[in-house]
Amino acid sequence: MTPDDARALDASDPLRGFRDRFALPEGVIYLDGNSLGPLPRTSSPALSDAIERQWGQRLIRSWNEGWIEAPRRIGAKIAPLIGAGADEVIVADSTSANLFRLIVAALRLDPSRTTVVSELGNFPTDLHIAEGAVGCVPGATLKAVPRESIGEALGNDTALLLLTHVHYKTAERFDMAAWTARAHAAGALVLWDLSHSAGAVPVDLNGAGADLAVGCGYKYLNGGPGAPAFLHVNRKWQEKLANPLSGWMGHAAPFLFEDGYRPASGMTRWLTGTPPILGLAALEAGVDIWSDVPADQVWAKSAALFDAFAAIGDDLGLECVSPRDPARRGSHISFRHPQAYALCQALIARGVIGDFRDPDILRFGLTPLYLGFEDIVHAGEKLRDLLETGSYLDPAFSKRNAVT
Amino acid sequence: MTPDDARALDASDPLRGFRDRFALPEGVIYLDGNSLGPLPRTSSPALSDAIERQWGQRLIRSWNEGWIEAPRRIGAKIAPLIGAGADEVIVADSTSANLFRLIVAALRLDPSRTTVVSELGNFPTDLHIAEGAVGCVPGATLKAVPRESIGEALGNDTALLLLTHVHYKTAERFDMAAWTARAHAAGALVLWDLSHSAGAVPVDLNGAGADLAVGCGYKYLNGGPGAPAFLHVNRKWQEKLANPLSGWMGHAAPFLFEDGYRPASGMTRWLTGTPPILGLAALEAGVDIWSDVPADQVWAKSAALFDAFAAIGDDLGLECVSPRDPARRGSHISFRHPQAYALCQALIARGVIGDFRDPDILRFGLTPLYLGFEDIVHAGEKLRDLLETGSYLDPAFSKRNAVT
Repeated sequence: MTPDDARALDASDPLRGFRDRFALPEGVIYLDGNSLGPLPRTSSPALSDAIERQWGQRLIRSWNEGWIEAPRRIGAKIAPLIGAGADEVIVADSTSANLFRLIVAALRLDPSRTTVVSELGNFPTDLHIAEGAVGCVPGATLKAVPRESIGEALGNDTALLLLTHVHYKTAERFDMAAWTARAHAAGALVLWDLSHSAGAVPVDLNGAGADLAVGCGYKYLNGGPGAPAFLHVNRKWQEKLANPLSGWMGHAAPFLFEDGYRPASGMTRWLTGTPPILGLAALEAGVDIWSDVPADQVWAKSAALFDAFAAIGDDLGLECVSPRDPARRGSHISFRHPQAYALCQALIARGVIGDFRDPDILRFGLTPLYLGFEDIVHAGEKLRDLLETGSYLDPAFSKRNAVT
Repeated sequence: MTPDDARALDASDPLRGFRDRFALPEGVIYLDGNSLGPLPRTSSPALSDAIERQWGQRLIRSWNEGWIEAPRRIGAKIAPLIGAGADEVIVADSTSANLFRLIVAALRLDPSRTTVVSELGNFPTDLHIAEGAVGCVPGATLKAVPRESIGEALGNDTALLLLTHVHYKTAERFDMAAWTARAHAAGALVLWDLSHSAGAVPVDLNGAGADLAVGCGYKYLNGGPGAPAFLHVNRKWQEKLANPLSGWMGHAAPFLFEDGYRPASGMTRWLTGTPPILGLAALEAGVDIWSDVPADQVWAKSAALFDAFAAIGDDLGLECVSPRDPARRGSHISFRHPQAYALCQALIARGVIGDFRDPDILRFGLTPLYLGFEDIVHAGEKLRDLLETGSYLDPAFSKRNAVT
């Protein structure tokens, strides 16, 4: 693809107007929206209102003027992006805390089923939290196996199949309907981590008959750094599962200040502590953009951006580890390279922000709301220059930061 | 106290300058800083920087430019307010989630000790979370007893004494050193909830030899609605206790993306998910004010504000349920009244914001950084007017809101 080709595609892109909804820094091509989505232009005014008017002027009165409803209200806005009902999603804490809640709850449903099956190489917090969660249920164990062994690991001892829909390194995507059916055939529930899926690919939890899901607010939903996460419980399980993090905000009547815990009905029981209002305000601004987005065009453009980047990678002789079939992947592209870390740092120094995943993955997020084809072509040119000149081998680029 | 007396006291108040650090609404006397602290003037600029520069311009690079350190950095700033070492405090999630972490961890320390002792009428989330936590440790139980029976409830089966230092309704304060010693004499650990203490009264965790503590960021620390909470672990327990919410941010090397969980050393292991950066930025602005505050003058002024309000209550024939001895209470004053809810609403309608606690408590926060004696006198005048005219009996004031 030539720069002229790219400009022509951008000129006819029906999503082009959404780029103006984000405050992208000058001189940067941002290919890391799958790690931290950029700043929506509406976020700063929304936060100013939350801080100066709601907090500063209205003070505690704001709890009755929208704050207390925020976890449910924003959950309902996320629901259509993941194929769930408005009364099946709530926003709470972090993806990790939400995983803990749901894994423990699922393990307690049927004492004869004691195993959580998951994938080796799953995003670490999923496995780490599953370790912690099985430690909270007597007899429970975590069975993490390679992807090709997941099917045979399911059995009549399986309580829960815990899968991340889109893999954070490779972008490989599980067939949600097929794996949900396999879990159900084994008598198990399934819990989908949608952190790299919500806002990235079509998700139809209810179409697949999925039981439980969690996901992150700060990637494709553009909710800001460390944004609150979401949690989904299929209606059929809502009165059967209990939140082990049984804090006052999940109580049926928190302001009666009862000594004993009585869970609220519906999704409210999954709340624990006081909702993080400033984080929720930023998340809502990010999620609200999606209500205007023609989702099918997003998925189509993601595929086209991928093809453009994959062609550059092929041309440069890079090993692409992401599936070529758009139905089998998420919305990022990853290459394996022995100097992936240094390449990533050298690209950042040249204004192309992707990211590195240990030990050898160079990863680029393809986010159709604010990326154009010309961005991909320009990023490809920088990558070509680095590879051809070898300038990424400068020792400055191999010094590891705390976070990449 | 006459208005002239009050003005004279305010004029000579060495803390008077701190009032200008807060953006208080016009025409409001805010006596609810013990529920939600008001907006520091530095919070809005701090959030603007976090949003527009750190998130908007620096994007993921900000993780290496201060974000990843924020939970430890802010914890170290809270430490002097609670008598802890800078390496004994971290900021994470909510008070409720932090209670869960520490209760489960304490129960796992010695399998022969299976009981959590706490107080009936403790703040509800403490008991609710304790219920959830004992459900995660085989054989564990919660023994919640009236205050006068706590001593006899401690025994050789006690793993943990869970107390809230200052009671949310009455402001009664436990003697931290004495109760820590009693717990230790029984061979148990003690966990102090400092939500109504940090920034309200002198706290000396290490002086008392306390083991564990949690507390809230949105009351006297002025961290904003739903601010992240803090968590303290005495140095002697740091390598012996494990976080059941074992998420990736508590891992020894989160960016090596290992399948197995290895806890970080020190306080970092108590982290779980990605830190809530916007909430942390607001909390830090609130906490930073305290580094300039002469704490002894705060405690002294709190006592004087209490005496002024208590005298008004006596004069009005109100039943004060808070201890008169400042060493035995926190920094709020509570009255029992059968129409406490309506009185609270009627006061709010007249610009005096206190709060109601079910079923019959009218509560006023006494926060020396931004309240003066004239505020107390004016609030007392409004209260007198309501009681004398009976105008709070208007049915409009008895209609319950979701939150009070």
